[in-house]
Amino acid sequence: MTTSAVTLRSIHEQLHELAAINADPAAGGITREVFTEHYAEATAYVAARMRDAGLEVRVDAFGNLFGRLDGRDRTAAAVLTGSHIDTTLNAGAYDGVLGVLGPIEAIRALREGGWAPERPVEVVAFAGEEPRFGSGCLGSRALVGSLTRAELDTMRDRDGVSVAEAMRRVGLDPDRLEDVRLDLAGVHAFVELHIEQGGVLEAAGVPLGVVTGIAAPHDLRVRITGAAAHSGATPMALRRDAFAAAAEAAVALERLALASPSGSTVATAGVVHVGPGAINVIPGYAELHVDVRDHDLGARTTVIEGFRAELRAIAQRRGVDVAVDTITQDAPAVCGAVVVDAVRRACAELGQPSRDVISGAYHDAMVLGPHVPIGMIFVPSVGGVSHSPLEFTEPDDIDRGVLVLAATLRRLAA
Amino acid sequence: MTTSAVTLRSIHEQLHELAAINADPAAGGITREVFTEHYAEATAYVAARMRDAGLEVRVDAFGNLFGRLDGRDRTAAAVLTGSHIDTTLNAGAYDGVLGVLGPIEAIRALREGGWAPERPVEVVAFAGEEPRFGSGCLGSRALVGSLTRAELDTMRDRDGVSVAEAMRRVGLDPDRLEDVRLDLAGVHAFVELHIEQGGVLEAAGVPLGVVTGIAAPHDLRVRITGAAAHSGATPMALRRDAFAAAAEAAVALERLALASPSGSTVATAGVVHVGPGAINVIPGYAELHVDVRDHDLGARTTVIEGFRAELRAIAQRRGVDVAVDTITQDAPAVCGAVVVDAVRRACAELGQPSRDVISGAYHDAMVLGPHVPIGMIFVPSVGGVSHSPLEFTEPDDIDRGVLVLAATLRRLAA
Repeated sequence: MTTSAVTLRSIHEQLHELAAINADPAAGGITREVFTEHYAEATAYVAARMRDAGLEVRVDAFGNLFGRLDGRDRTAAAVLTGSHIDTTLNAGAYDGVLGVLGPIEAIRALREGGWAPERPVEVVAFAGEEPRFGSGCLGSRALVGSLTRAELDTMRDRDGVSVAEAMRRVGLDPDRLEDVRLDLAGVHAFVELHIEQGGVLEAAGVPLGVVTGIAAPHDLRVRITGAAAHSGATPMALRRDAFAAAAEAAVALERLALASPSGSTVATAGVVHVGPGAINVIPGYAELHVDVRDHDLGARTTVIEGFRAELRAIAQRRGVDVAVDTITQDAPAVCGAVVVDAVRRACAELGQPSRDVISGAYHDAMVLGPHVPIGMIFVPSVGGVSHSPLEFTEPDDIDRGVLVLAATLRRLAA
Repeated sequence: MTTSAVTLRSIHEQLHELAAINADPAAGGITREVFTEHYAEATAYVAARMRDAGLEVRVDAFGNLFGRLDGRDRTAAAVLTGSHIDTTLNAGAYDGVLGVLGPIEAIRALREGGWAPERPVEVVAFAGEEPRFGSGCLGSRALVGSLTRAELDTMRDRDGVSVAEAMRRVGLDPDRLEDVRLDLAGVHAFVELHIEQGGVLEAAGVPLGVVTGIAAPHDLRVRITGAAAHSGATPMALRRDAFAAAAEAAVALERLALASPSGSTVATAGVVHVGPGAINVIPGYAELHVDVRDHDLGARTTVIEGFRAELRAIAQRRGVDVAVDTITQDAPAVCGAVVVDAVRRACAELGQPSRDVISGAYHDAMVLGPHVPIGMIFVPSVGGVSHSPLEFTEPDDIDRGVLVLAATLRRLAA
């Protein structure tokens, strides 16, 4: 059997079925945060698809969902594949979800063609990849043992709800965190199918990306305290305007990223709070949550250090207090040769052009990277848009990605 | 009788009694917005002080509170004095309140000294000077007939409550707006005692400011729409980051104000909203509410036009949409010679040094300016701080201000 003989049912249709369950037409997108009722609904949908494909379903103590197909050698290290089904606020239908529904469909189609893998193959939907609680990849971090019980109490969402409290509300026991750890010696390799979430493939006119490395974020929380005062009666020279300072910092951040030595650093101030928030009051407080990423750690460090120096200069010049703390500081990941090679050969086998790419977004694969050989397959995002209701990937590109994933799984599980 | 013989009771104590009624220790300030229960409590306190001083109390259909002392000539045009008792969020104890409790105490003390004015004298607490509903001076605008019934439905507070709805909740009938109009021919002059809310008097070491003009705001709402996208996967060159655009605009606004031809223009972005508001999503939307003020209309126009041009250039360069609309555009006011002269002479009579100043903040006096001769008396604000719980004026400076007001009222009512 060759993978090109596999017949896919409409994976595109399944993506939209799942999206429809949690769509919020008023907000114009899908909001499906981990440890919510919406998330439970989506998990039930995916578990049903897993059972349809003949997978054995289990959910661990953190809410990570697994679907397992036993290998002919039931004791061999398994091939793991998966992604996440939680979303950011007002998100699209593809981010993460493709990497969960895609392999289920790939396995179903392969089995329909008579496939029986040597190694066990497991599909996983990691819980909490998106940063509801300030930083992401919680489920995969729990699996590799790098999430602590204390963090479940200290990490909180925008309403002040801790991870532990959110877990309890959906019937999960945060005190069972240790039970979640995976025996990593039992994992042969991990491969994740994902939309690109950027515009590189589209611009290059190439339908498939073979990911060779994953950029990692260094996230900072910047709190600026100036002096709230009357916006009419306070001359410009006497002000300590916290938002004016924040705006200057944001402009500097952008300039530093554009001047990064790697040429690939990106920097974003995605969360901005300004208080007290009246038109006739000079802001006394401003907070920025800043995300800086690169696969080149040196370049990322250069931008972070430049930004910190800029903040110190702004504080001095404007007489405002600036406090900076780190939210997340992850190491970039290098993909494993065994997976990269399998993906490249799968593309070649199917006669599909591909190119090597770096993932600008982080993924659960990044968390697994230090422990097992990892790799990723990217399909194009129209307009490079993601984390938005406008997120879209052409059905043909999705089918191509699932077929390449199927061929990759065949190779890795042989 | 000379005014210097007047004995004041502790006006400072009264300011703090009123502040204590609505203090919110958790938020660290006083929040007493118009048309709320807190506002009604404060109104009751002030009405009681008016009655103690022998004034006849009435409240008009908009909630403006009046206390009247008849003159020997009951048909003569009255001397009006007053300010407001509503506050911004987490505000201080002095802004507005001094200009209401101050004249009540001045009149009480003058009458204790045997004073019987020729003209009627009225103390007024204007309802809604602070911009709960987006723009301020509603009570004084209602009095001069420049507030329309339609605006009561269209102007809304941050929770979406209209002026009309807020009025109904406290038992006022918005359909009686026409009844509020004052016969302006019956007003001889208006004088308002107020804290400076800036640092000019303190820096000059002068305890009294004779206001000769009032700067007026031109307020803009700026809505920037870019493209929400993944903060890691979107290269810097492919972004349409709405907050990066807003930050650049805010930096330009500050630069334009500092370069203003008058040297006195001030500009503030006091309200900032950024969405969707996640650390891994490039902001697709940003909104700034911008306040630009000057007593020099030409200079203010130069800054506003420069800012609009900058916004157009930012929109073009960054590929974002920028929509700008005007919230408020008031004309600066020139004080009336009869009032300015009376205040200057009152200072001289009491042997108090004073200097002419421009009010950077707007006041109800500005609204009355086109209709009757107006003037203001300023006392120093420690550190120039206002619209903050740290707002403070020395008790001696307050007493000096009330004595100068008393002497001014004596002259104007003669």
